[in-house]
Amino acid sequence: MSASALKSPLTPLQLRQQIRRNQFTANTSGQAPGFVQANLAIMPKQYAADFLQFCHFNPKPCPLLAMSATPGAVDMPQLAADLDIRTDIPKYKVFKQGQLVEEVSDINAYWQDDFVSFLIGCSFSFEESLIADGLEIRNITEQVNVPMYRTNIACEPAGVFSGGMVVSMRPMKPADAIRAIQICSRFPQVHGAPVHFGDPAAIGINDINKPDFGDAVTIKPGEVPVFWACGVTPQVAIANAKLDICITHSPGYMLVTDLPNSKLSVF
Amino acid sequence: MSASALKSPLTPLQLRQQIRRNQFTANTSGQAPGFVQANLAIMPKQYAADFLQFCHFNPKPCPLLAMSATPGAVDMPQLAADLDIRTDIPKYKVFKQGQLVEEVSDINAYWQDDFVSFLIGCSFSFEESLIADGLEIRNITEQVNVPMYRTNIACEPAGVFSGGMVVSMRPMKPADAIRAIQICSRFPQVHGAPVHFGDPAAIGINDINKPDFGDAVTIKPGEVPVFWACGVTPQVAIANAKLDICITHSPGYMLVTDLPNSKLSVF
Repeated sequence: MSASALKSPLTPLQLRQQIRRNQFTANTSGQAPGFVQANLAIMPKQYAADFLQFCHFNPKPCPLLAMSATPGAVDMPQLAADLDIRTDIPKYKVFKQGQLVEEVSDINAYWQDDFVSFLIGCSFSFEESLIADGLEIRNITEQVNVPMYRTNIACEPAGVFSGGMVVSMRPMKPADAIRAIQICSRFPQVHGAPVHFGDPAAIGINDINKPDFGDAVTIKPGEVPVFWACGVTPQVAIANAKLDICITHSPGYMLVTDLPNSKLSVF
Repeated sequence: MSASALKSPLTPLQLRQQIRRNQFTANTSGQAPGFVQANLAIMPKQYAADFLQFCHFNPKPCPLLAMSATPGAVDMPQLAADLDIRTDIPKYKVFKQGQLVEEVSDINAYWQDDFVSFLIGCSFSFEESLIADGLEIRNITEQVNVPMYRTNIACEPAGVFSGGMVVSMRPMKPADAIRAIQICSRFPQVHGAPVHFGDPAAIGINDINKPDFGDAVTIKPGEVPVFWACGVTPQVAIANAKLDICITHSPGYMLVTDLPNSKLSVF
Protein backbone atom coordinates (compact mmCIF):
# COMPACT_ATOMS: atom_id res chain seq x y z
CA MET A 1 0.00 0.00 0.00
CA SER A 2 1.50 3.31 -1.02
CA ALA A 3 2.05 6.23 1.33
CA SER A 4 -0.59 8.27 -0.48
CA ALA A 5 -3.15 5.53 0.14
CA LEU A 6 -2.49 5.84 3.86
CA LYS A 7 -3.33 9.56 3.82
CA SER A 8 -6.76 10.16 2.37
CA PRO A 9 -7.20 7.80 -0.54
CA LEU A 10 -9.13 8.94 -3.55
CA THR A 11 -12.37 7.13 -4.27
CA PRO A 12 -12.21 5.00 -7.41
CA LEU A 13 -14.36 7.58 -9.24
CA GLN A 14 -12.12 10.48 -8.16
CA LEU A 15 -9.05 8.52 -9.23
CA ARG A 16 -10.54 7.69 -12.65
CA GLN A 17 -11.41 11.34 -13.18
CA GLN A 18 -7.83 12.37 -12.35
CA ILE A 19 -6.60 9.70 -14.78
CA ARG A 20 -8.96 10.99 -17.48
CA ARG A 21 -7.52 14.52 -17.08
CA ASN A 22 -3.93 13.12 -17.07
CA GLN A 23 -3.49 14.40 -13.49
CA PHE A 24 -2.71 10.86 -12.34
CA THR A 25 -0.32 9.03 -14.66
CA ALA A 26 1.39 6.45 -12.40
CA ASN A 27 0.65 2.75 -12.02
CA THR A 28 -2.37 1.95 -9.89
CA SER A 29 -0.75 -0.46 -7.40
CA GLY A 30 -1.89 0.49 -3.89
CA GLN A 31 -4.38 3.09 -5.15
CA ALA A 32 -8.02 3.07 -3.97
CA PRO A 33 -7.30 0.27 -1.48
CA GLY A 34 -10.19 -2.14 -1.03
CA PHE A 35 -11.48 -1.83 -4.60
CA VAL A 36 -11.17 -4.29 -7.46
CA GLN A 37 -8.69 -3.44 -10.22
CA ALA A 38 -9.03 -5.10 -13.60
CA ASN A 39 -7.05 -6.16 -16.65
CA LEU A 40 -8.34 -4.77 -19.96
CA ALA A 41 -8.51 -6.28 -23.44
CA ILE A 42 -10.20 -4.48 -26.33
CA MET A 43 -10.64 -6.03 -29.79
CA PRO A 44 -12.91 -5.79 -32.82
CA LYS A 45 -16.27 -7.55 -32.59
CA GLN A 46 -15.25 -10.26 -35.09
CA TYR A 47 -12.91 -11.78 -32.44
CA ALA A 48 -15.09 -11.18 -29.39
CA ALA A 49 -17.03 -14.46 -29.46
CA ASP A 50 -13.78 -16.46 -29.66
CA PHE A 51 -12.24 -14.46 -26.83
CA LEU A 52 -15.32 -14.87 -24.64
CA GLN A 53 -15.11 -18.62 -25.21
CA PHE A 54 -11.37 -18.57 -24.40
CA CYS A 55 -12.17 -16.89 -21.06
CA HIS A 56 -14.94 -19.42 -20.41
CA PHE A 57 -12.59 -22.33 -21.13
CA ASN A 58 -9.76 -20.90 -19.00
CA PRO A 59 -11.37 -19.26 -15.96
CA LYS A 60 -8.28 -19.40 -13.72
CA PRO A 61 -6.00 -17.25 -15.91
CA CYS A 62 -8.90 -15.36 -17.58
CA PRO A 63 -11.61 -14.70 -14.98
CA LEU A 64 -14.01 -12.43 -16.85
CA LEU A 65 -15.46 -9.69 -14.63
CA ALA A 66 -17.41 -7.85 -17.32
CA MET A 67 -17.62 -7.09 -21.06
CA SER A 68 -19.16 -4.35 -23.16
CA ALA A 69 -22.94 -4.58 -23.36
CA THR A 70 -22.77 -3.71 -27.09
CA PRO A 71 -19.91 -3.15 -29.56
CA GLY A 72 -18.60 0.40 -29.38
CA ALA A 73 -19.85 0.97 -25.81
CA VAL A 74 -17.28 2.89 -23.73
CA ASP A 75 -19.03 2.41 -20.38
CA MET A 76 -19.26 -0.58 -18.03
CA PRO A 77 -21.90 0.47 -15.49
CA GLN A 78 -21.75 -2.78 -13.51
CA LEU A 79 -18.08 -2.05 -12.67
CA ALA A 80 -17.58 1.72 -12.65
CA ALA A 81 -19.74 4.86 -12.65
CA ASP A 82 -19.25 7.43 -15.43
CA LEU A 83 -16.63 5.26 -17.13
CA ASP A 84 -14.99 6.10 -20.43
CA ILE A 85 -12.86 3.06 -21.23
CA ARG A 86 -10.87 5.17 -23.76
CA THR A 87 -9.43 7.58 -21.19
CA ASP A 88 -9.85 6.24 -17.64
CA ILE A 89 -6.82 3.94 -17.53
CA PRO A 90 -3.39 5.58 -17.06
CA LYS A 91 -1.55 3.68 -19.79
CA TYR A 92 -2.63 1.51 -22.72
CA LYS A 93 -0.73 -0.73 -25.11
CA VAL A 94 -1.82 -0.79 -28.75
CA PHE A 95 -0.99 -3.93 -30.74
CA LYS A 96 -1.26 -4.47 -34.49
CA GLN A 97 -0.74 -7.98 -35.90
CA GLY A 98 0.46 -9.02 -32.46
CA GLN A 99 3.19 -6.35 -32.31
CA LEU A 100 3.22 -3.48 -29.82
CA VAL A 101 2.99 -0.23 -31.78
CA GLU A 102 2.48 2.39 -29.07
CA GLU A 103 1.88 3.05 -25.38
CA VAL A 104 -0.61 5.88 -24.86
CA SER A 105 -2.60 7.56 -22.09
CA ASP A 106 -5.84 7.59 -24.08
CA ILE A 107 -7.05 5.58 -27.05
CA ASN A 108 -9.47 8.01 -28.68
CA ALA A 109 -7.27 8.08 -31.77
CA TYR A 110 -7.61 4.29 -32.15
CA TRP A 111 -11.25 3.83 -31.18
CA GLN A 112 -13.51 1.85 -33.52
CA ASP A 113 -17.27 1.55 -33.32
CA ASP A 114 -16.95 -2.25 -33.41
CA PHE A 115 -14.60 -2.49 -30.38
CA VAL A 116 -15.59 -4.85 -27.58
CA SER A 117 -13.96 -4.42 -24.14
CA PHE A 118 -13.22 -7.24 -21.70
CA LEU A 119 -12.32 -6.70 -18.04
CA ILE A 120 -10.49 -9.54 -16.32
CA GLY A 121 -9.73 -10.05 -12.62
CA CYS A 122 -6.30 -9.09 -11.27
CA SER A 123 -4.14 -10.41 -8.44
CA PHE A 124 -4.13 -7.03 -6.63
CA SER A 125 -7.44 -8.10 -5.01
CA PHE A 126 -6.09 -11.27 -3.43
CA GLU A 127 -2.73 -9.73 -2.52
CA GLU A 128 -4.64 -7.23 -0.40
CA SER A 129 -6.44 -10.05 1.42
CA LEU A 130 -3.17 -11.94 1.99
CA ILE A 131 -1.47 -8.84 3.44
CA ALA A 132 -4.50 -8.13 5.64
CA ASP A 133 -4.08 -11.66 7.04
CA GLY A 134 -0.45 -10.96 7.94
CA LEU A 135 1.24 -12.77 5.06
CA GLU A 136 4.23 -11.24 3.33
CA ILE A 137 4.08 -10.65 -0.42
CA ARG A 138 7.72 -10.66 -1.48
CA ASN A 139 7.31 -8.53 -4.62
CA ILE A 140 5.63 -5.86 -2.52
CA THR A 141 8.31 -6.06 0.20
CA GLU A 142 11.02 -5.78 -2.44
CA GLN A 143 9.05 -3.11 -4.34
CA VAL A 144 9.25 -4.79 -7.71
CA ASN A 145 6.76 -6.25 -10.15
CA VAL A 146 5.61 -9.77 -9.37
CA PRO A 147 7.69 -12.35 -11.32
CA MET A 148 5.73 -14.06 -14.09
CA TYR A 149 6.65 -17.11 -16.15
CA ARG A 150 5.49 -18.88 -19.28
CA THR A 151 4.63 -22.52 -18.48
CA ASN A 152 3.94 -25.79 -20.28
CA ILE A 153 0.36 -25.76 -18.93
CA ALA A 154 -1.66 -25.45 -22.14
CA CYS A 155 -4.74 -23.28 -22.17
CA GLU A 156 -7.83 -24.73 -23.80
CA PRO A 157 -7.86 -23.05 -27.23
CA ALA A 158 -10.91 -21.21 -28.57
CA GLY A 159 -11.09 -20.03 -32.19
CA VAL A 160 -8.06 -17.85 -32.95
CA PHE A 161 -6.92 -17.79 -29.32
CA SER A 162 -4.44 -20.27 -27.86
CA GLY A 163 -1.25 -20.40 -25.81
CA GLY A 164 0.38 -21.53 -22.60
CA MET A 165 -0.69 -20.38 -19.17
CA VAL A 166 1.38 -17.58 -17.67
CA VAL A 167 1.78 -17.79 -13.91
CA SER A 168 2.81 -15.30 -11.24
CA MET A 169 5.00 -16.49 -8.35
CA ARG A 170 5.13 -15.56 -4.68
CA PRO A 171 7.55 -17.44 -2.38
CA MET A 172 6.15 -18.55 0.98
CA LYS A 173 6.79 -20.93 3.83
CA PRO A 174 4.53 -24.00 3.43
CA ALA A 175 2.24 -23.06 6.34
CA ASP A 176 1.77 -19.59 4.84
CA ALA A 177 1.16 -21.12 1.42
CA ILE A 178 -1.61 -23.27 2.93
CA ARG A 179 -3.21 -20.15 4.42
CA ALA A 180 -2.83 -18.34 1.08
CA ILE A 181 -4.57 -21.22 -0.71
CA GLN A 182 -7.48 -20.89 1.74
CA ILE A 183 -7.76 -17.13 1.30
CA CYS A 184 -7.38 -17.15 -2.49
CA SER A 185 -9.97 -19.92 -2.81
CA ARG A 186 -12.53 -17.33 -1.74
CA PHE A 187 -11.73 -15.26 -4.83
CA PRO A 188 -12.24 -17.35 -7.98
CA GLN A 189 -12.77 -14.18 -10.04
CA VAL A 190 -9.25 -12.95 -9.32
CA HIS A 191 -7.44 -16.18 -10.30
CA GLY A 192 -8.48 -18.16 -7.21
CA ALA A 193 -6.22 -20.75 -5.59
CA PRO A 194 -2.68 -21.31 -6.87
CA VAL A 195 -2.17 -23.83 -9.68
CA HIS A 196 1.19 -25.20 -8.48
CA PHE A 197 3.81 -24.96 -5.78
CA GLY A 198 7.35 -26.28 -5.43
CA ASP A 199 9.38 -27.62 -8.36
CA PRO A 200 9.33 -25.00 -11.16
CA ALA A 201 10.45 -27.57 -13.76
CA ALA A 202 7.25 -29.54 -13.21
CA ILE A 203 5.36 -26.80 -15.07
CA GLY A 204 8.10 -26.04 -17.58
CA ILE A 205 9.92 -23.19 -15.84
CA ASN A 206 13.64 -23.63 -16.42
CA ASP A 207 15.08 -20.85 -14.28
CA ILE A 208 13.06 -19.40 -11.42
CA ASN A 209 15.51 -16.47 -11.26
CA LYS A 210 14.73 -15.43 -14.84
CA PRO A 211 11.04 -14.56 -15.08
CA ASP A 212 9.58 -13.98 -18.55
CA PHE A 213 7.72 -10.90 -17.28
CA GLY A 214 8.17 -8.74 -14.17
CA ASP A 215 11.14 -9.03 -11.82
CA ALA A 216 12.88 -11.83 -9.93
CA VAL A 217 12.32 -11.90 -6.15
CA THR A 218 14.28 -13.51 -3.32
CA ILE A 219 13.28 -17.05 -2.30
CA LYS A 220 14.48 -17.59 1.27
CA PRO A 221 15.54 -20.93 2.83
CA GLY A 222 12.46 -22.90 3.88
CA GLU A 223 10.25 -21.19 1.33
CA VAL A 224 8.71 -22.73 -1.76
CA PRO A 225 7.63 -20.88 -4.89
CA VAL A 226 3.83 -20.72 -5.14
CA PHE A 227 2.34 -20.19 -8.59
CA TRP A 228 -0.95 -18.51 -9.52
CA ALA A 229 -2.64 -18.35 -12.92
CA CYS A 230 -1.92 -14.86 -14.25
CA GLY A 231 -3.84 -12.24 -16.23
CA VAL A 232 -0.94 -11.96 -18.66
CA THR A 233 -2.14 -15.27 -20.11
CA PRO A 234 -4.84 -13.66 -22.27
CA GLN A 235 -2.33 -11.05 -23.48
CA VAL A 236 -0.11 -13.88 -24.73
CA ALA A 237 -3.08 -15.56 -26.40
CA ILE A 238 -4.00 -12.25 -28.04
CA ALA A 239 -0.44 -11.74 -29.25
CA ASN A 240 -0.40 -15.29 -30.65
CA ALA A 241 -3.62 -14.54 -32.56
CA LYS A 242 -1.99 -11.55 -34.34
CA LEU A 243 -5.23 -9.55 -34.47
CA ASP A 244 -5.32 -6.58 -36.87
CA ILE A 245 -5.68 -4.40 -33.82
CA CYS A 246 -6.01 -4.98 -30.11
CA ILE A 247 -5.61 -2.72 -27.08
CA THR A 248 -4.72 -3.71 -23.52
CA HIS A 249 -3.79 -1.84 -20.36
CA SER A 250 -0.06 -1.60 -19.61
CA PRO A 251 0.92 -4.03 -16.82
CA GLY A 252 0.30 -2.38 -13.45
CA TYR A 253 -1.79 0.43 -14.97
CA MET A 254 -5.20 -1.07 -14.32
CA LEU A 255 -8.84 -0.09 -14.47
CA VAL A 256 -9.80 0.86 -10.90
CA THR A 257 -13.44 -0.16 -10.40
CA ASP A 258 -16.11 0.83 -7.87
CA LEU A 259 -16.47 -2.81 -6.79
CA PRO A 260 -15.23 -3.56 -3.25
CA ASN A 261 -12.85 -6.55 -3.22
CA SER A 262 -15.16 -8.25 -0.74
CA LYS A 263 -17.86 -8.46 -3.44
CA LEU A 264 -15.68 -10.99 -5.26
CA SER A 265 -15.53 -13.30 -2.23
CA VAL A 266 -17.68 -16.37 -2.74
CA PHE A 267 -17.94 -17.20 0.96
CA MET B 1 -14.52 -48.34 1.04
CA SER B 2 -14.96 -52.01 1.87
CA ALA B 3 -16.85 -54.45 -0.30
CA SER B 4 -19.51 -54.83 2.38
CA ALA B 5 -20.12 -51.08 2.32
CA LEU B 6 -20.86 -51.32 -1.39
CA LYS B 7 -23.55 -53.96 -0.81
CA SER B 8 -26.10 -52.71 1.64
CA PRO B 9 -24.30 -50.73 4.30
CA LEU B 10 -25.51 -50.94 7.86
CA THR B 11 -26.84 -47.75 9.36
CA PRO B 12 -24.59 -46.34 12.08
CA LEU B 13 -27.10 -47.53 14.72
CA GLN B 14 -27.25 -51.04 13.27
CA LEU B 15 -23.46 -51.17 13.16
CA ARG B 16 -23.13 -49.99 16.78
CA GLN B 17 -25.63 -52.63 17.87
CA GLN B 18 -23.65 -55.35 16.09
CA ILE B 19 -20.50 -54.03 17.76
CA ARG B 20 -22.23 -54.07 21.16
CA ARG B 21 -23.12 -57.76 20.65
CA ASN B 22 -19.58 -58.56 19.41
CA GLN B 23 -21.02 -59.49 16.01
CA PHE B 24 -18.84 -56.87 14.38
CA THR B 25 -15.25 -56.85 15.69
CA ALA B 26 -13.22 -55.42 12.79
CA ASN B 27 -11.88 -51.90 12.32
CA THR B 28 -14.47 -49.39 11.16
CA SER B 29 -12.65 -48.00 8.10
CA GLY B 30 -15.11 -47.84 5.20
CA GLN B 31 -18.09 -48.79 7.40
CA ALA B 32 -21.28 -46.71 7.38
CA PRO B 33 -19.96 -44.52 4.56
CA GLY B 34 -21.02 -40.89 4.77
CA PHE B 35 -21.13 -40.77 8.58
CA VAL B 36 -18.69 -39.16 10.99
CA GLN B 37 -16.37 -41.48 12.92
CA ALA B 38 -14.71 -40.23 16.08
CA ASN B 39 -11.64 -40.73 18.27
CA LEU B 40 -12.41 -41.51 21.93
CA ALA B 41 -10.66 -40.48 25.15
CA ILE B 42 -12.09 -41.35 28.57
CA MET B 43 -10.55 -40.14 31.84
CA PRO B 44 -11.52 -39.40 35.45
CA LYS B 45 -13.26 -36.09 36.08
CA GLN B 46 -10.23 -34.62 37.88
CA TYR B 47 -8.38 -34.37 34.54
CA ALA B 48 -11.34 -33.40 32.37
CA ALA B 49 -11.05 -29.61 32.73
CA ASP B 50 -7.36 -29.72 31.75
CA PHE B 51 -8.10 -31.96 28.78
CA LEU B 52 -10.94 -29.74 27.61
CA GLN B 53 -8.56 -26.78 27.76
CA PHE B 54 -5.93 -28.77 25.85
CA CYS B 55 -8.47 -29.40 23.08
CA HIS B 56 -9.46 -25.75 23.09
CA PHE B 57 -5.83 -24.65 22.79
CA ASN B 58 -5.04 -27.16 20.02
CA PRO B 59 -8.09 -27.36 17.79
CA LYS B 60 -6.29 -28.70 14.71
CA PRO B 61 -5.02 -31.94 16.27
CA CYS B 62 -7.81 -32.12 18.90
CA PRO B 63 -11.07 -30.95 17.32
CA LEU B 64 -13.62 -31.73 20.02
CA LEU B 65 -16.91 -33.01 18.61
CA ALA B 66 -18.64 -33.77 21.92
CA MET B 67 -18.07 -34.63 25.59
CA SER B 68 -20.15 -36.28 28.31
CA ALA B 69 -22.92 -34.06 29.63
CA THR B 70 -22.12 -35.24 33.18
CA PRO B 71 -19.43 -37.50 34.71
CA GLY B 72 -20.40 -41.15 34.45
CA ALA B 73 -22.75 -40.61 31.51
CA VAL B 74 -22.44 -43.39 28.92
CA ASP B 75 -24.55 -41.73 26.24
CA MET B 76 -23.83 -38.88 23.82
CA PRO B 77 -27.23 -38.09 22.30
CA GLN B 78 -25.95 -35.28 20.07
CA LEU B 79 -23.71 -37.80 18.24
CA ALA B 80 -25.38 -41.21 18.42
CA ALA B 81 -28.80 -42.63 19.35
CA ASP B 82 -28.98 -45.32 22.06
CA LEU B 83 -25.22 -45.10 22.66
CA ASP B 84 -23.39 -47.02 25.38
CA ILE B 85 -19.82 -45.70 25.20
CA ARG B 86 -18.66 -48.79 27.18
CA THR B 87 -19.63 -51.34 24.51
CA ASP B 88 -20.30 -49.66 21.18
CA ILE B 89 -16.71 -49.37 19.93
CA PRO B 90 -15.07 -52.54 18.57
CA LYS B 91 -11.78 -52.22 20.44
CA TYR B 92 -10.52 -50.11 23.34
CA LYS B 93 -7.09 -49.50 24.83
CA VAL B 94 -6.80 -49.23 28.62
CA PHE B 95 -3.84 -47.24 29.99
CA LYS B 96 -2.61 -47.00 33.57
CA GLN B 97 0.14 -44.49 34.41
CA GLY B 98 0.58 -43.96 30.68
CA GLN B 99 1.21 -47.64 29.98
CA LEU B 100 -1.07 -49.82 27.84
CA VAL B 101 -2.42 -52.59 30.06
CA GLU B 102 -5.06 -54.23 27.90
CA GLU B 103 -7.02 -54.10 24.64
CA VAL B 104 -10.67 -55.08 25.16
CA SER B 105 -13.97 -55.13 23.29
CA ASP B 106 -15.92 -53.60 26.17
CA ILE B 107 -14.88 -51.54 29.17
CA ASN B 108 -17.60 -52.40 31.67
CA ALA B 109 -14.98 -53.96 33.96
CA TYR B 110 -13.08 -50.66 34.10
CA TRP B 111 -15.96 -48.21 34.23
CA GLN B 112 -15.94 -45.54 36.97
CA ASP B 113 -18.79 -43.21 37.89
CA ASP B 114 -16.44 -40.22 37.52
CA PHE B 115 -15.40 -41.02 33.92
CA VAL B 116 -15.74 -38.23 31.36
CA SER B 117 -15.72 -39.14 27.65
CA PHE B 118 -14.37 -36.96 24.85
CA LEU B 119 -15.05 -37.55 21.16
CA ILE B 120 -12.61 -36.00 18.71
CA GLY B 121 -12.86 -35.63 14.92
CA CYS B 122 -11.10 -38.16 12.67
CA SER B 123 -9.56 -37.95 9.22
CA PHE B 124 -11.92 -40.61 7.81
CA SER B 125 -14.41 -37.77 7.18
CA PHE B 126 -12.11 -35.70 5.00
CA GLU B 127 -10.59 -38.74 3.25
CA GLU B 128 -14.09 -39.59 2.05
CA SER B 129 -14.52 -36.09 0.61
CA LEU B 130 -11.11 -36.23 -1.09
CA ILE B 131 -11.90 -39.58 -2.70
CA ALA B 132 -15.33 -38.33 -3.80
CA ASP B 133 -13.51 -35.49 -5.57
CA GLY B 134 -11.32 -37.96 -7.46
CA LEU B 135 -8.14 -37.64 -5.42
CA GLU B 136 -6.10 -40.71 -4.57
CA ILE B 137 -5.40 -41.46 -0.90
CA ARG B 138 -2.23 -43.52 -1.01
CA ASN B 139 -2.74 -45.38 2.29
CA ILE B 140 -6.16 -46.51 1.04
CA THR B 141 -4.78 -47.53 -2.38
CA GLU B 142 -2.00 -49.48 -0.66
CA GLN B 143 -4.42 -50.83 1.98
CA VAL B 144 -2.33 -49.85 4.97
CA ASN B 145 -2.75 -47.51 7.91
CA VAL B 146 -1.97 -43.88 7.20
CA PRO B 147 1.65 -43.04 8.17
CA MET B 148 1.89 -40.81 11.25
CA TYR B 149 4.90 -38.96 12.64
CA ARG B 150 5.90 -37.15 15.80
CA THR B 151 6.96 -33.56 14.98
CA ASN B 152 8.74 -30.63 16.60
CA ILE B 153 5.52 -28.58 16.42
CA ALA B 154 4.74 -28.07 20.11
CA CYS B 155 1.14 -28.22 21.28
CA GLU B 156 0.00 -25.47 23.63
CA PRO B 157 0.12 -27.20 27.05
CA ALA B 158 -2.86 -27.19 29.42
CA GLY B 159 -2.55 -28.44 33.00
CA VAL B 160 -1.13 -31.97 32.99
CA PHE B 161 -1.37 -32.28 29.20
CA SER B 162 1.48 -31.42 26.84
CA GLY B 163 3.42 -32.85 23.92
CA GLY B 164 4.34 -32.47 20.28
CA MET B 165 1.85 -32.54 17.47
CA VAL B 166 1.49 -35.84 15.65
CA VAL B 167 0.77 -35.54 11.94
CA SER B 168 -0.58 -37.92 9.32
CA MET B 169 0.90 -37.84 5.81
CA ARG B 170 -0.61 -38.35 2.38
CA PRO B 171 1.61 -37.87 -0.71
CA MET B 172 0.10 -35.87 -3.57
CA LYS B 173 1.04 -33.96 -6.68
CA PRO B 174 1.06 -30.22 -5.90
CA ALA B 175 -2.12 -29.47 -7.88
CA ASP B 176 -3.92 -32.26 -5.99
CA ALA B 177 -2.55 -30.96 -2.70
CA ILE B 178 -3.99 -27.52 -3.49
CA ARG B 179 -7.39 -29.12 -4.14
CA ALA B 180 -7.08 -31.16 -0.91
CA ILE B 181 -6.34 -27.96 1.04
CA GLN B 182 -9.53 -26.43 -0.36
CA ILE B 183 -11.66 -29.45 0.48
CA CYS B 184 -10.22 -30.01 3.97
CA SER B 185 -10.64 -26.32 4.82
CA ARG B 186 -14.38 -26.99 4.80
CA PHE B 187 -13.93 -29.45 7.67
CA PRO B 188 -12.25 -27.75 10.64
CA GLN B 189 -13.76 -30.31 13.04
CA VAL B 190 -11.89 -33.16 11.38
CA HIS B 191 -8.42 -31.53 11.46
CA GLY B 192 -9.09 -29.01 8.67
CA ALA B 193 -6.41 -27.93 6.22
CA PRO B 194 -2.93 -29.50 6.30
CA VAL B 195 -0.32 -27.95 8.59
CA HIS B 196 2.68 -28.50 6.31
CA PHE B 197 3.80 -29.87 2.96
CA GLY B 198 7.17 -30.65 1.45
CA ASP B 199 10.38 -30.92 3.48
CA PRO B 200 9.78 -33.36 6.39
CA ALA B 201 12.84 -32.07 8.28
CA ALA B 202 11.23 -28.62 8.56
CA ILE B 203 8.82 -30.08 11.13
CA GLY B 204 11.31 -32.43 12.77
CA ILE B 205 10.65 -35.63 10.81
CA ASN B 206 13.99 -37.34 10.18
CA ASP B 207 12.94 -40.25 7.97
CA ILE B 208 9.72 -40.09 5.99
CA ASN B 209 10.00 -43.84 5.36
CA LYS B 210 9.89 -44.63 9.09
CA PRO B 211 6.60 -43.37 10.52
CA ASP B 212 6.20 -43.39 14.31
CA PHE B 213 2.68 -44.83 13.95
CA GLY B 214 0.94 -46.59 11.06
CA ASP B 215 2.70 -47.72 7.90
CA ALA B 216 5.01 -46.17 5.32
CA VAL B 217 3.49 -45.46 1.91
CA THR B 218 5.02 -44.89 -1.53
CA ILE B 219 5.87 -41.31 -2.51
CA LYS B 220 6.03 -41.17 -6.30
CA PRO B 221 8.19 -38.81 -8.40
CA GLY B 222 6.55 -35.39 -8.63
CA GLU B 223 4.65 -35.86 -5.39
CA VAL B 224 5.21 -34.02 -2.12
CA PRO B 225 4.30 -35.28 1.35
CA VAL B 226 1.31 -33.37 2.74
CA PHE B 227 0.90 -33.34 6.52
CA TRP B 228 -2.30 -33.03 8.55
CA ALA B 229 -2.68 -32.59 12.30
CA CYS B 230 -3.61 -36.01 13.66
CA GLY B 231 -5.95 -37.33 16.35
CA VAL B 232 -3.09 -39.38 17.80
CA THR B 233 -1.79 -36.09 19.24
CA PRO B 234 -4.14 -36.19 22.27
CA GLN B 235 -3.21 -39.85 22.89
CA VAL B 236 0.44 -38.82 23.12
CA ALA B 237 -0.46 -35.95 25.47
CA ILE B 238 -2.48 -38.38 27.60
CA ALA B 239 0.40 -40.86 27.70
CA ASN B 240 2.77 -38.05 28.69
CA ALA B 241 0.43 -37.12 31.56
CA LYS B 242 0.62 -40.67 33.01
CA LEU B 243 -2.98 -40.61 34.28
CA ASP B 244 -3.93 -43.27 36.86
CA ILE B 245 -6.32 -44.60 34.28
CA CYS B 246 -7.39 -43.59 30.82
CA ILE B 247 -9.22 -45.38 28.04
CA THR B 248 -9.08 -44.69 24.31
CA HIS B 249 -10.33 -46.46 21.17
CA SER B 250 -7.77 -48.62 19.35
CA PRO B 251 -6.53 -46.85 16.18
CA GLY B 252 -8.93 -47.56 13.30
CA TYR B 253 -11.63 -48.91 15.66
CA MET B 254 -13.69 -45.75 15.95
CA LEU B 255 -17.03 -44.62 17.29
CA VAL B 256 -19.38 -44.54 14.28
CA THR B 257 -21.81 -41.67 14.83
CA ASP B 258 -25.20 -40.79 13.35
CA LEU B 259 -23.84 -37.47 12.10
CA PRO B 260 -23.52 -37.17 8.30
CA ASN B 261 -20.05 -35.97 7.27
CA SER B 262 -21.69 -33.04 5.47
CA LYS B 263 -22.85 -31.68 8.83
CA LEU B 264 -19.21 -30.91 9.65
CA SER B 265 -18.78 -28.79 6.54
CA VAL B 266 -18.63 -25.09 7.40
CA PHE B 267 -19.51 -23.94 3.89
